[in-house]
Amino acid sequence: MLQAICARDGAKAKAFAEQWGYASVETDWKKLIARKDIDLIDIASPNNTHAEMAMAAAAAGKMILCEKPLAMNGAQAETMVKAVEKAKVPNMVWYNYRRVPAVTLAKQLIDEGRLGRIFHYRAKFLQDWTISKDLPQGGAGLWRLDVKVAGSGVTGDLLAHCIDTALWLNGPIDKVTAMTETFIKERKHTISGKVEKVGIDDASAFLARFSNGSMATFESTRYARGHKALYTFEINGEHASIFWDLHDLHRLQYFDHRDEGIVRGWRALHITDGDHPYMKHWWVPGLQIGYEHTFIHQVADFLQGLQDGKPAGPSFRDGLATDHVTDAVLQSAKSGRWEKVKQVRKK
Amino acid sequence: MLQAICARDGAKAKAFAEQWGYASVETDWKKLIARKDIDLIDIASPNNTHAEMAMAAAAAGKMILCEKPLAMNGAQAETMVKAVEKAKVPNMVWYNYRRVPAVTLAKQLIDEGRLGRIFHYRAKFLQDWTISKDLPQGGAGLWRLDVKVAGSGVTGDLLAHCIDTALWLNGPIDKVTAMTETFIKERKHTISGKVEKVGIDDASAFLARFSNGSMATFESTRYARGHKALYTFEINGEHASIFWDLHDLHRLQYFDHRDEGIVRGWRALHITDGDHPYMKHWWVPGLQIGYEHTFIHQVADFLQGLQDGKPAGPSFRDGLATDHVTDAVLQSAKSGRWEKVKQVRKK
Amino acid sequence: MLQAICARDGAKAKAFAEQWGYASVETDWKKLIARKDIDLIDIASPNNTHAEMAMAAAAAGKMILCEKPLAMNGAQAETMVKAVEKAKVPNMVWYNYRRVPAVTLAKQLIDEGRLGRIFHYRAKFLQDWTISKDLPQGGAGLWRLDVKVAGSGVTGDLLAHCIDTALWLNGPIDKVTAMTETFIKERKHTISGKVEKVGIDDASAFLARFSNGSMATFESTRYARGHKALYTFEINGEHASIFWDLHDLHRLQYFDHRDEGIVRGWRALHITDGDHPYMKHWWVPGLQIGYEHTFIHQVADFLQGLQDGKPAGPSFRDGLATDHVTDAVLQSAKSGRWEKVKQVRKK
Amino acid sequence: MLQAICARDGAKAKAFAEQWGYASVETDWKKLIARKDIDLIDIASPNNTHAEMAMAAAAAGKMILCEKPLAMNGAQAETMVKAVEKAKVPNMVWYNYRRVPAVTLAKQLIDEGRLGRIFHYRAKFLQDWTISKDLPQGGAGLWRLDVKVAGSGVTGDLLAHCIDTALWLNGPIDKVTAMTETFIKERKHTISGKVEKVGIDDASAFLARFSNGSMATFESTRYARGHKALYTFEINGEHASIFWDLHDLHRLQYFDHRDEGIVRGWRALHITDGDHPYMKHWWVPGLQIGYEHTFIHQVADFLQGLQDGKPAGPSFRDGLATDHVTDAVLQSAKSGRWEKVKQVRKK
Repeated sequence: MLQAICARDGAKAKAFAEQWGYASVETDWKKLIARKDIDLIDIASPNNTHAEMAMAAAAAGKMILCEKPLAMNGAQAETMVKAVEKAKVPNMVWYNYRRVPAVTLAKQLIDEGRLGRIFHYRAKFLQDWTISKDLPQGGAGLWRLDVKVAGSGVTGDLLAHCIDTALWLNGPIDKVTAMTETFIKERKHTISGKVEKVGIDDASAFLARFSNGSMATFESTRYARGHKALYTFEINGEHASIFWDLHDLHRLQYFDHRDEGIVRGWRALHITDGDHPYMKHWWVPGLQIGYEHTFIHQVADFLQGLQDGKPAGPSFRDGLATDHVTDAVLQSAKSGRWEKVKQVRKK
Repeated sequence: MLQAICARDGAKAKAFAEQWGYASVETDWKKLIARKDIDLIDIASPNNTHAEMAMAAAAAGKMILCEKPLAMNGAQAETMVKAVEKAKVPNMVWYNYRRVPAVTLAKQLIDEGRLGRIFHYRAKFLQDWTISKDLPQGGAGLWRLDVKVAGSGVTGDLLAHCIDTALWLNGPIDKVTAMTETFIKERKHTISGKVEKVGIDDASAFLARFSNGSMATFESTRYARGHKALYTFEINGEHASIFWDLHDLHRLQYFDHRDEGIVRGWRALHITDGDHPYMKHWWVPGLQIGYEHTFIHQVADFLQGLQDGKPAGPSFRDGLATDHVTDAVLQSAKSGRWEKVKQVRKK
Repeated sequence: MLQAICARDGAKAKAFAEQWGYASVETDWKKLIARKDIDLIDIASPNNTHAEMAMAAAAAGKMILCEKPLAMNGAQAETMVKAVEKAKVPNMVWYNYRRVPAVTLAKQLIDEGRLGRIFHYRAKFLQDWTISKDLPQGGAGLWRLDVKVAGSGVTGDLLAHCIDTALWLNGPIDKVTAMTETFIKERKHTISGKVEKVGIDDASAFLARFSNGSMATFESTRYARGHKALYTFEINGEHASIFWDLHDLHRLQYFDHRDEGIVRGWRALHITDGDHPYMKHWWVPGLQIGYEHTFIHQVADFLQGLQDGKPAGPSFRDGLATDHVTDAVLQSAKSGRWEKVKQVRKK
Repeated sequence: MLQAICARDGAKAKAFAEQWGYASVETDWKKLIARKDIDLIDIASPNNTHAEMAMAAAAAGKMILCEKPLAMNGAQAETMVKAVEKAKVPNMVWYNYRRVPAVTLAKQLIDEGRLGRIFHYRAKFLQDWTISKDLPQGGAGLWRLDVKVAGSGVTGDLLAHCIDTALWLNGPIDKVTAMTETFIKERKHTISGKVEKVGIDDASAFLARFSNGSMATFESTRYARGHKALYTFEINGEHASIFWDLHDLHRLQYFDHRDEGIVRGWRALHITDGDHPYMKHWWVPGLQIGYEHTFIHQVADFLQGLQDGKPAGPSFRDGLATDHVTDAVLQSAKSGRWEKVKQVRKK
């Protein structure tokens, strides 16, 4: 049941509720959390509001789904983890790419040991929507360019997705060395109306070592002309390799060295068959689902987890792990040195 | 409002209604059509039932959406067109590929004259799900292999899609020469329990002439190992060419000879931008929608058409035009000769 | 040893000989054939000269390599076959695509029975270089547009390549139904200086039945905007399928249904490994050879065949088989009927 | 004229000379250099021999072509540059990828200013041929694994190619931070017959800053399962982007944001037209050349440069610039810090 939608602008909230079938409207999130008829809070507001809302929701005993990145930084995320774990409320972060069927299959192939020892991981998330100097910062849709609201730029926005997937598929990252850049130094702020310094990172890249000994390169930017949302990752193992590309959402490229030599090659797996992850619930083979269904899958897994008593991830604890990596990345970009990543104990 | 679902098996219908939120259940389609609270009938039953249901629904003044192919053959389809036009009820056939944003954009580019004089059209729809000799015919999910229920095999099932798109994009087809084949001659029938002759065409290919002088090749089969639902079409014009592939749902390949020579090449258009057809209603650029949204678009256009007084196609009349082509294809496969296609007057 | 180059224009012939290292020059091909120091004649002149030259060369006991198509038509080709077989001179036609390593590998995979029963063959050869109305016919480089010199248009020029490969890979073709078109009806003739009727086919498509029961579609054109030399073929068998594309020269796409379900997909084989056909003589894996090496491979196989006493194909007899198919295609395009293909006995 | 081939094994050298048409054989390279009938020395021996040979050849007034990397390190390369510049002998290093027509076109498009301000450069060179633990080090073909002979592993072998292209296309690199790894720590040495420590880097990755302000990621490895020789680079500019892939040798991917919005997309340029670099000397459009022709182009440019008095690059000075970058990479991998790259003055 969609009980209530909450937003500061009551008129907009009402219109939204009517369009999507929410039963009621709130303009004060604290009132929402205080309501007895609410079991679960879904936090979809800007990054600088996650912590306060989540702490309050946890204190009120609500289940919580929270947008990524979990917090403005690792320290803040730690308090959130403590809060939800103390309150024992189910919790999840919207790192939805884990639920792309092709990505879920990648996880399955890795867990089955098909790749063998892992040598390399490489990921990038490229966009090109902020190249114009005339694009302002701040305000609706553009808060991602305002460091006070977003915490960071592409590191927390795009790399965070790459990192969550990587930690899930390839285990912990030990250390990183990074480089960031702000190509456009000043932009008009839509709220102040003034030209202000841009505090976010427009682009961010880092080298990393995983605990399993594999090497990695990560990169994200909003200045890669021609790429709208090119998230790709590749993993090279002793026996097999995997490649995935968000712009080719339902294909997984798979190479298995154990194939017979003359017919060995990258296999283009079209992840639309009934025995592929999630796909028995969808269309017949060959007909693909949309990006939005990654969220549907996540909700389904969350609900199934509640029923089974086995919470589905990524939990706040997982979100914290990613925040620790992004903290190290931003710190290294300042220090010019390799930085150790603070580890999160598995629970 | 989803007023009622109708199916012969009441228990299944009830379960379906509960899962998807239909308000009531019927097991006799004639009762459904007789209900006053029903404005629109959506016919999703096997091909041999379309005509009777549609005629009754038209007589009852209902709007009608009908699965493709419209009828068992052109003659039957003609009676359906007469019925809906006499009753003046809005009508539409589920040739949903017109509403793939990339295909809709192809139509737009052609209508703008970007291709110039058209020389070639080629389309194919390849599947591989009936290769096994052990697959039976008849019954749930397998009625497509039973000629008495389906009317024909891939000609009415797959080629019909190719033909509808082609008539829409490139105008009428004048004549065809065709070849069909039934690779597996006998299959067990799930209803009779006996091995029976297979009456459908497993594969079908034809050459065609369009009224605009362009040449065409069409092919469909369920015996193309490796292809789940590979529907592709390509159009070569004097100035530009277009290529689309269902397995790469949201890309349109576009070549424009007027581009500067050294940087001239096929452009891979990723149809996810706000100025692409339908996409201003969906996700941000780079994030794709699913196959199912082609149906959503069709419903949206149908409703918008009702409001504007400009019915959206493909109408029953359009569906009839496709049935005339498939009739000519099947006839030519028998006669071994070029067969003229019966034309449908534009209304 | 490159003994002599022969061309009507002595100055050009001399320049050519100097650039490429031919020992001498002739301007009368009959003198060339009369020379005792010549063992092998390579006929690279326009189609209407092949027969006379080859007959004379055979009579003089020379080995013969001949450009494709072998002759102006099957009847003429038959006389050439008789001549070389009577004279017992080694003979070969330049259907060089058989020696693309990826195509040779396709042959190997088929001969090993990996595909199983063949259901479908489809081939096309698309170009776009004659779309302009201002392009003249006749004369150097443009004799391919002059029917008196070329015999036919794309049927003998491009489809002939597709047919030779198909006969080699999939066996004899029984019958065809075809359609041809001449889009530009008149062009200035460079020799007469007058606007003359265009006698060649600009585009040609046909449906076919192979003796093994498989169905086929073939198409070629010089009016497919965007394609310089897009020769592709695909073969669908019960167990496996193969796809090749001249624009992606060294990749063979291979799908094997016997692969495990969740990791089953089209394999992109990069044909540059030492165990791939011909490649042990070339660069290290990953580094590709050029189109010209298909000719080198053909010469190498010819010489090896001489040494082994097992002549390498395609022989004149093979070239005749292709001419019989193109004859049937051109005949069917006129008659509007299925035409049987005259068969060539294997020798 | 191919005057002489020199190798320590006289029998092999003789066989080589006969196969390829060299007029004579030497087994002592010093004798070769002393010969009066030799104008140009082509050094194709292992890395640790380049300097001594080149210095001697320069002293003897010979023109020199030298395999890459130029030297074991920058210091050694500096002495070579001094020697050839003092002797005023034409000199060139075999960074042949500059002469892939698609790469040369990339240079042309950049020089024409089509990309605008450059934001990003990313390159990688991935192979998988040393994954097996059983592969020995040292000796013929395997000297690349012996640090005493090779100087370094993938950094000097593969990254050097990426760096040379990058310096050519995008200008000087200011600083780098790097990571290297030797996955297999010990291998049998074919010369000593003993298991010895592996001194080379199996994989190497670095972040970089170009002088023009752009950011870069570079990576190379011989442990990327599935990639035989995957060299790719991408450049993102304000207006346009370029992508190239060695496995798709003759395509250049080009995106131009100035294209009209609805038909804007990555253009797949097939670099086989007469107006593309070098291609007017080769086959007709659509028919591609081989990898080896990059060397032909380089020789042609070298000879043309001699004639024109404008030496063609890459010169020893260019090779030195690359060695300075690889030195900084290897140094950073040890120091864990950003390292400045020693700059080479343009001459």
